[in-house]
Amino acid sequence: MERVRFLLEFLPYIQKFRGRTFVIKIGGSVLEDEKVLHKIAKDISVLYNIGIKIILIHGGGPQADDLLNRLNHKPNKIAGRRITDDETLEVTKMVYGGKINIEITAALQRYKTKAIGFSGVSCNTVYAKRRDITTIMDPDTGRSEDIDFGYVGDIVDVNLELLNSMINQHYIPVIACLGIDKEGTILNINADTIAQEIGKKVGAEKLIYVTNVHGILEKKDDPTTVISYLDLKSAKELLEEGKITGGMMPKLHNCISAIENDVKRVHIIDGNLEHSLLIEVFTNQGCGTLMEKETNGELIQDGN
Amino acid sequence: MERVRFLLEFLPYIQKFRGRTFVIKIGGSVLEDEKVLHKIAKDISVLYNIGIKIILIHGGGPQADDLLNRLNHKPNKIAGRRITDDETLEVTKMVYGGKINIEITAALQRYKTKAIGFSGVSCNTVYAKRRDITTIMDPDTGRSEDIDFGYVGDIVDVNLELLNSMINQHYIPVIACLGIDKEGTILNINADTIAQEIGKKVGAEKLIYVTNVHGILEKKDDPTTVISYLDLKSAKELLEEGKITGGMMPKLHNCISAIENDVKRVHIIDGNLEHSLLIEVFTNQGCGTLMEKETNGELIQDGN
Amino acid sequence: MERVRFLLEFLPYIQKFRGRTFVIKIGGSVLEDEKVLHKIAKDISVLYNIGIKIILIHGGGPQADDLLNRLNHKPNKIAGRRITDDETLEVTKMVYGGKINIEITAALQRYKTKAIGFSGVSCNTVYAKRRDITTIMDPDTGRSEDIDFGYVGDIVDVNLELLNSMINQHYIPVIACLGIDKEGTILNINADTIAQEIGKKVGAEKLIYVTNVHGILEKKDDPTTVISYLDLKSAKELLEEGKITGGMMPKLHNCISAIENDVKRVHIIDGNLEHSLLIEVFTNQGCGTLMEKETNGELIQDGN
Amino acid sequence: MERVRFLLEFLPYIQKFRGRTFVIKIGGSVLEDEKVLHKIAKDISVLYNIGIKIILIHGGGPQADDLLNRLNHKPNKIAGRRITDDETLEVTKMVYGGKINIEITAALQRYKTKAIGFSGVSCNTVYAKRRDITTIMDPDTGRSEDIDFGYVGDIVDVNLELLNSMINQHYIPVIACLGIDKEGTILNINADTIAQEIGKKVGAEKLIYVTNVHGILEKKDDPTTVISYLDLKSAKELLEEGKITGGMMPKLHNCISAIENDVKRVHIIDGNLEHSLLIEVFTNQGCGTLMEKETNGELIQDGN
Amino acid sequence: MERVRFLLEFLPYIQKFRGRTFVIKIGGSVLEDEKVLHKIAKDISVLYNIGIKIILIHGGGPQADDLLNRLNHKPNKIAGRRITDDETLEVTKMVYGGKINIEITAALQRYKTKAIGFSGVSCNTVYAKRRDITTIMDPDTGRSEDIDFGYVGDIVDVNLELLNSMINQHYIPVIACLGIDKEGTILNINADTIAQEIGKKVGAEKLIYVTNVHGILEKKDDPTTVISYLDLKSAKELLEEGKITGGMMPKLHNCISAIENDVKRVHIIDGNLEHSLLIEVFTNQGCGTLMEKETNGELIQDGN
Amino acid sequence: MERVRFLLEFLPYIQKFRGRTFVIKIGGSVLEDEKVLHKIAKDISVLYNIGIKIILIHGGGPQADDLLNRLNHKPNKIAGRRITDDETLEVTKMVYGGKINIEITAALQRYKTKAIGFSGVSCNTVYAKRRDITTIMDPDTGRSEDIDFGYVGDIVDVNLELLNSMINQHYIPVIACLGIDKEGTILNINADTIAQEIGKKVGAEKLIYVTNVHGILEKKDDPTTVISYLDLKSAKELLEEGKITGGMMPKLHNCISAIENDVKRVHIIDGNLEHSLLIEVFTNQGCGTLMEKETNGELIQDGN
Repeated sequence: MERVRFLLEFLPYIQKFRGRTFVIKIGGSVLEDEKVLHKIAKDISVLYNIGIKIILIHGGGPQADDLLNRLNHKPNKIAGRRITDDETLEVTKMVYGGKINIEITAALQRYKTKAIGFSGVSCNTVYAKRRDITTIMDPDTGRSEDIDFGYVGDIVDVNLELLNSMINQHYIPVIACLGIDKEGTILNINADTIAQEIGKKVGAEKLIYVTNVHGILEKKDDPTTVISYLDLKSAKELLEEGKITGGMMPKLHNCISAIENDVKRVHIIDGNLEHSLLIEVFTNQGCGTLMEKETNGELIQDGN
Repeated sequence: MERVRFLLEFLPYIQKFRGRTFVIKIGGSVLEDEKVLHKIAKDISVLYNIGIKIILIHGGGPQADDLLNRLNHKPNKIAGRRITDDETLEVTKMVYGGKINIEITAALQRYKTKAIGFSGVSCNTVYAKRRDITTIMDPDTGRSEDIDFGYVGDIVDVNLELLNSMINQHYIPVIACLGIDKEGTILNINADTIAQEIGKKVGAEKLIYVTNVHGILEKKDDPTTVISYLDLKSAKELLEEGKITGGMMPKLHNCISAIENDVKRVHIIDGNLEHSLLIEVFTNQGCGTLMEKETNGELIQDGN
Repeated sequence: MERVRFLLEFLPYIQKFRGRTFVIKIGGSVLEDEKVLHKIAKDISVLYNIGIKIILIHGGGPQADDLLNRLNHKPNKIAGRRITDDETLEVTKMVYGGKINIEITAALQRYKTKAIGFSGVSCNTVYAKRRDITTIMDPDTGRSEDIDFGYVGDIVDVNLELLNSMINQHYIPVIACLGIDKEGTILNINADTIAQEIGKKVGAEKLIYVTNVHGILEKKDDPTTVISYLDLKSAKELLEEGKITGGMMPKLHNCISAIENDVKRVHIIDGNLEHSLLIEVFTNQGCGTLMEKETNGELIQDGN
Repeated sequence: MERVRFLLEFLPYIQKFRGRTFVIKIGGSVLEDEKVLHKIAKDISVLYNIGIKIILIHGGGPQADDLLNRLNHKPNKIAGRRITDDETLEVTKMVYGGKINIEITAALQRYKTKAIGFSGVSCNTVYAKRRDITTIMDPDTGRSEDIDFGYVGDIVDVNLELLNSMINQHYIPVIACLGIDKEGTILNINADTIAQEIGKKVGAEKLIYVTNVHGILEKKDDPTTVISYLDLKSAKELLEEGKITGGMMPKLHNCISAIENDVKRVHIIDGNLEHSLLIEVFTNQGCGTLMEKETNGELIQDGN
Repeated sequence: MERVRFLLEFLPYIQKFRGRTFVIKIGGSVLEDEKVLHKIAKDISVLYNIGIKIILIHGGGPQADDLLNRLNHKPNKIAGRRITDDETLEVTKMVYGGKINIEITAALQRYKTKAIGFSGVSCNTVYAKRRDITTIMDPDTGRSEDIDFGYVGDIVDVNLELLNSMINQHYIPVIACLGIDKEGTILNINADTIAQEIGKKVGAEKLIYVTNVHGILEKKDDPTTVISYLDLKSAKELLEEGKITGGMMPKLHNCISAIENDVKRVHIIDGNLEHSLLIEVFTNQGCGTLMEKETNGELIQDGN
Repeated sequence: MERVRFLLEFLPYIQKFRGRTFVIKIGGSVLEDEKVLHKIAKDISVLYNIGIKIILIHGGGPQADDLLNRLNHKPNKIAGRRITDDETLEVTKMVYGGKINIEITAALQRYKTKAIGFSGVSCNTVYAKRRDITTIMDPDTGRSEDIDFGYVGDIVDVNLELLNSMINQHYIPVIACLGIDKEGTILNINADTIAQEIGKKVGAEKLIYVTNVHGILEKKDDPTTVISYLDLKSAKELLEEGKITGGMMPKLHNCISAIENDVKRVHIIDGNLEHSLLIEVFTNQGCGTLMEKETNGELIQDGN
């Protein structure tokens, strides 16, 4: 009976989300433990099986660093951004496009979803151009430098033809964060940005970042200060006040851009928390940070 | 968290039933209380929203008796079967085809399912012929009599064209138990039989009888003796042993015929038990009687 | 030969109407005699079989009054409008949604048309809201009164999804004049208004009211004064001159609204006249009242 | 003019092959030089652009060995077959599923074909089971040993749903030789066998092995002794005579099995020969070994 | 009213024939008078507009003779069959494929049917081979001769691909009696035989020969002796009795072959009789000869 | 190898033209020699087989003159324009619509293209009106005269419904230059103009005039002065300078109008030059005159 009572509580969520599209980005940091991957795959299987269309994007930074180290090639980052030389590009192809992509795909299949893993190179899905030489101030030295990021690409366009064909046939596309330019050169692309651009172009119901932090924190490094709700206005204020720093800054910029371009809601959750994805989607209080354009009171039952 | 744990338990059921067809027959006896109707409608809405195709058939005997009484027309039954004279036919059109059909349809719409209520007359969905004069032994008097059942019909064929079109467009057809013969005469048809014939022709995953009893009882009138599981062989033995009597007898015959003709499982449940439909479908132990061809061990997780 | 000559005369009509949509409203007053119903059904079968898409709406006022009387519930009308209390709503469900709807459907099937009978409740086809308390001046007493019409609804929208699916599969939808509000409450709706709203939304070639009067009469109660043709301008003048009174007034308002909103022609005919439907459609002189936006000389051959 | 004369010579080939399916397997040995890859991609682009449906399968043995060596993990082979331990499986995911798959896909895109690169894991395309412990006689020592090949899989079935969807949308699927079992375990699968099984199930017009040898050689290691034509009978004789040894033996077995199961023609060509693919397809004399069921004289113009 | 009564009489015919296919062959002899052509076109327009699928085949013998004479080329016939030399083939292309085909097409368009005129050459619709040298006994001289009929073809197959595409898009194909062989040679083909072969392959509801005689005559040249009904058995007896001679003999053979191969009914009517086509289709007594397999009593109303 | 090198040169052309539409007009002057027709048909077959959609329009002036002469009816032209009296109309139906249309269709079939030959009359494809009496100055006498061109039509609209259906089913429509007016009268229409109007309405990639001249000549009658490239501006200057005279003038006007209305490129080539069609399409230097809006540098490889 209790079981049935719970089932009935999910009914309005199911009614609301059937046939809608969720774009989910999974960070490499939560993919290191196979058990975590399997739990996330199971959560996604639930979403998939109640009729939600899902597009998955993933990175794999820590795993790439790991392989680079094993190959005695020191990862080269400037101001937190990876310089992608020949060897590094090889490694991203192998780690993002091979190991991680296939492991996510296999985990989803294990839970009876039809998943297809490929990279943004396929069918020009992530169409990009090589980043120009960029002048960057090294925060440590204070000196400006002209940086060649190598095989790092900036997105020119995302091509939905293949993705739409797949989600309409009820497949889950699993996309490794690589792109291609017009000469056919393979480029390393930021996964958060791919997720955001795809989310905007499909008009996603939700864009969900599965990370290794609890959400946006009021006080850096204090996980108890998660901001559980942000509207667009307060998100911008937060940025202006300079409270957000480090890797969360570009993520917050991504969120704002998504919300301003047809994505209904953006979530940032911690993939290491068990079932954080389902908790965030199916409960009112959630477990991470939810951002939307403005508080519209369009809650489901008592929340969300 | 507990909430999420429950959701995950439903996953294998959802994976198994998505896109399959359930034929559900609701007896008039459970439709007398509007609250019961609304609870059943909500249960059906859950099934519908996880992607199960549903065909609903209903009767309305008690309500027809009620109107006949108010119109001072004594219901006329012989050996438990209704004689359908002109006035009675009028009443079945009004009660089955009007009042009850529309109320079920409205209740389903209230829970955001797209339901369409019509009678078996529409598009010759229940194609029948008037029952011939039948010789029946009155169990009370022991005398044989030639009975003209009036506008009672026997099914010649069920026409799936309309039903298939509807379930493929994700509508729930709600069918009042009337039929039509080749001259266009409207006939009163047994709802259990319609459900069984449709179930057989669509090859239903489940045929569910929602009744006012707990299931098939080992001892008549003792609801604690519900037989919760029957395979075909034991069902037939039960009949041969003469343990089953009264209105449950033709129902058991219907079940056996369904199982022998492509219906995978038949359930008999009590609609007055809260959420009996969901309990029967989504739990291992269920709450009524389940019949299948043979015990195949094809359980979901720990059962069902 | 004569037969063939007649057939050739129909050719331009067939060429003009194939694939177009006629919305036909049949009043309850012409449905009391089964022979009349069968003749109308046969006429509609002709239209259907030459490829016209047909949507049928019907009422059933006299039949509802009749049942109310048999149930000792005095029909309650104020200024010609029915107050729909609980008992009356029950009766409309039974009479409109059951008896009459099914009888029309069966009669159409008898003449080999695929008809499907349902009420405006199904799939929110007639989406309505309960009428607010209305201040009405009783024409008899001259006093204003606040009237609660009970379960009477005003149309918010008609939902064409189901209707379009049906007529494109060459079914005839037969719609009982009930509607549903957003809480799932069943409401009694004026059939003329449903016909008009559907006619407007599908852009009907013809909206035909099959009534028990010969058409719009110049002198009330004098059937020899039928106005056989009205353009929009003269229809409005007629209203302003106050010549039209009684039940014909809202009907004329309906006609004008239809013509002003994409319905090409509106006809009012007498269903008791044998084959009035075919005469009106297939002859130049017709037999009732025809209204169109302006006289456009777009006659078929010598007329219509 | 000469140019046009050549174009006309291709006409009968184009007429014959439009809309047919070619399954092409590219061996890892020809993928080490990027220029060779680009030439093969260009050849495939020609086939694709005249309307041939193409399914590509690739391996990557040498590249996997190379990475294993760099990671100080000695490749472990017994009787020429790779033992796939944990580390080796990681490497095959990275090299087959990542590096090589993406490079082929990018090369094809460079020549304006819509290619999509994924592994046999996706959508259970290569459905397999882990190979049982196998007793193998070591040809060097003459001793039998029980070998656990680790994560090596044998094909249970190939799932055409995804592949058919893709080639019908005119995409080229590029498949890395990995598979998945029913528990979701990723397995290393022989690419030649995948190509053969897919070729058989789609009824390929041609199954083409692009290798680093000129074809089947009459005298091992003497490339001038290429057998340019074999019918089924002579292929079997060749095997029986024991003339074929080494890695060519399983390849010849694959060819025979393909020809016996609905593949029309099998070709073995040398990918290092410039444009060997086009020469083999579009000329009579070809450049490698062609095998078919029986010589049927169904030549194009003067040959092939 | 009378008009409506007639319309109702047509209802069962329309119900029976909607969506069925009529193959109609129009002989050149009835196409010489433009007024006759226009009347036949109007009759066909009626059939088309009530939803019958129509395939038209025509000849043009007299018109071809006429042009041959104007070009001073004596028509050359042996035993009633035309020898088709180069000049004659030119004339058949021009007269059958040009003049007559286009005039029929234009006449149909005039009556608002979508007609498309082409010859059996198009898309290999009438695929044929040149007739072998045939030994024929000249009935006048009694001597046998080896005759080369020139560009006369015998049908190998009729290709329905184009025809089905057209009738399903509700076009009327109008086919000139020419064919093509596998070398692309244009051949003169008997129109009656084309009509019969197409009728058989589409399983026509009716195959109608529109000729310049009243039907099959009991006494040659006595038009009052039309046989209005023949079943297969009596048709064969008629042939055996030797009563049928001249041009009617091959026609009767054609009819018998059609009836024996899936054509339901064959009609032979006189195109010069006004509206003979409609009279034959829509009346019981008809006006020409009707042949069917066996008298099945499946009359419409009182006949046909 | 050389063969393959050529094939690769065609790749960019094939990539560019697949799925695009070429409208090709073949003048009667190049159809007199059957060998020329077969060569052109073979060239078209190449275009068709690499996936180009082709619409063919043809005339037949010289052949019509020839037949008119044989029938002793002097062709009547004023200022180079044909007066189409009754006899001439007959001849155009026979020659354009019959002889030539069927011969082109048969020739295409011979090279395995699915061609369907019909006239602009079919399905109102070339919808026209009879040309009004026109005042024309006879260049010989200098006097103005009111000329009745008889059955000459001016295009009102081209109806793409049939053409689109055909090219999307991969048929080649072959259209004889006749049209039809709203009364169903057949009219003689200028083939160049039909080609231009169809080219504009389908937005053709190329509109190709296959003539008996080498292209637009700088010096009339000097074939060595072919202008191989014209942009819109220089084409207009050429006209203004008065350098272009005779039959080339209306052709140039047609070209300009086409280019100004969505046709990308217009070509004028000499059908008597062997494979001029393929040379013009597949080589940079071409062999006739190419006109486009402006020089856009969008060359294929080294040209075209």
